[in-house]
Amino acid sequence: MEPLSARPAEPSTGMRPGPRVEQGIVDLLGALAYGELSAFERMASDARLAPTLADRAVVAGLAVAEFGHFQRLCARLEQLGADPEVAMDPYIAAVETFHDLTAPTDWLESLVKCYVGDGIARDFYREVASYLDDSTRTLVQDALADDAQATFAVRKVRAAIAADPRLSGRLALWARRLVGEALTQAQKVAVERESLVRLLSARADLAELGRLFARVTDGHYARMESLGLSA
Amino acid sequence: MEPLSARPAEPSTGMRPGPRVEQGIVDLLGALAYGELSAFERMASDARLAPTLADRAVVAGLAVAEFGHFQRLCARLEQLGADPEVAMDPYIAAVETFHDLTAPTDWLESLVKCYVGDGIARDFYREVASYLDDSTRTLVQDALADDAQATFAVRKVRAAIAADPRLSGRLALWARRLVGEALTQAQKVAVERESLVRLLSARADLAELGRLFARVTDGHYARMESLGLSA
Repeated sequence: MEPLSARPAEPSTGMRPGPRVEQGIVDLLGALAYGELSAFERMASDARLAPTLADRAVVAGLAVAEFGHFQRLCARLEQLGADPEVAMDPYIAAVETFHDLTAPTDWLESLVKCYVGDGIARDFYREVASYLDDSTRTLVQDALADDAQATFAVRKVRAAIAADPRLSGRLALWARRLVGEALTQAQKVAVERESLVRLLSARADLAELGRLFARVTDGHYARMESLGLSA
Repeated sequence: MEPLSARPAEPSTGMRPGPRVEQGIVDLLGALAYGELSAFERMASDARLAPTLADRAVVAGLAVAEFGHFQRLCARLEQLGADPEVAMDPYIAAVETFHDLTAPTDWLESLVKCYVGDGIARDFYREVASYLDDSTRTLVQDALADDAQATFAVRKVRAAIAADPRLSGRLALWARRLVGEALTQAQKVAVERESLVRLLSARADLAELGRLFARVTDGHYARMESLGLSA
């Protein structure tokens, strides 16, 4: 079997994580990895909405960065003795449903999706990572550190709204829809994947979990404000 | 201005190549660069046709390699004093038309397109590169050297035909359609971009050009044979 993190890879053999690796960690890395692979594909496709070749090239480059994260997360799963395909499988439906329900119809929608959708996912994973062992946490935080797309999206969206203030209503609505669909899918995953919830609840009491979600929400408000949109 | 080869990039300033760089070379690099950017996007989208996550990851990785070539070709254009956006612009319509008319409807069609379509483009550019200055030639040849996708596609298509021999008729027809559409678009470009044709005809007489096209055709037949398809 060749590793999924290298290419060309082969379908893997279905090897299971060893007994010493907590299933919740494999779940978390699997969810994150599938999210990155899917983000890569969607961003690479959405790049075609860009108004100029230079913008298209930037979005393509951002997509390529997501693929790099995907490869590193798969490598980590393999290090832990887990099969990346098996680890990712439970998250395919939720992630794809989210993307299908939030396919951007123009360039600005794709930028807002990049920034707002990805921002919430990043914040959430960053929070969860604080409960992990040192080396997994570092890996996850590195995968999330790259905020080139944030800078790019904020600049472009602000400029577009400055040029045509009427855009802000439509884009604010769009952002709310993104958040709504993301929460719906996250909830479904939480119901179905007990091990993920256990990973969290074993490390944080209800009050701490409440603060976690409050911080993620604050992050969202801050991003909306930096776009010049009302949350 | 930031270079298109780095990210995040900005729309460039429309700088023209200096008088000492032949327009045909800028044209060739521009055509090749746009082909790579477009191949990246199309392959990244087509990755979703893959039957397994491992196959999807391989195709995504192949797409990422195309983006790497794109970046290097843009960097070379900038070195030559040319604006990559201006250099690529004349080829957008032909490349996009080709892809729109040959959007694969399933995984095997996408593999054959990857291998057959890309194979012809590579052979042609490799031939043309032999007429260029040393450093441009090396760059173009490097961009074309990576044949990981050939190995992968051949293996998968052969296995599929072995499992279901009836596939070979449909896939052979598909390959012929790819070649037909590619030739149609190439001809349109040749009529419109005199500088590209001049680049060739200044370096090769008609007999040599005839041999060039014969070699590209031979390459195509060899690829069809390695897929187990009749050309």
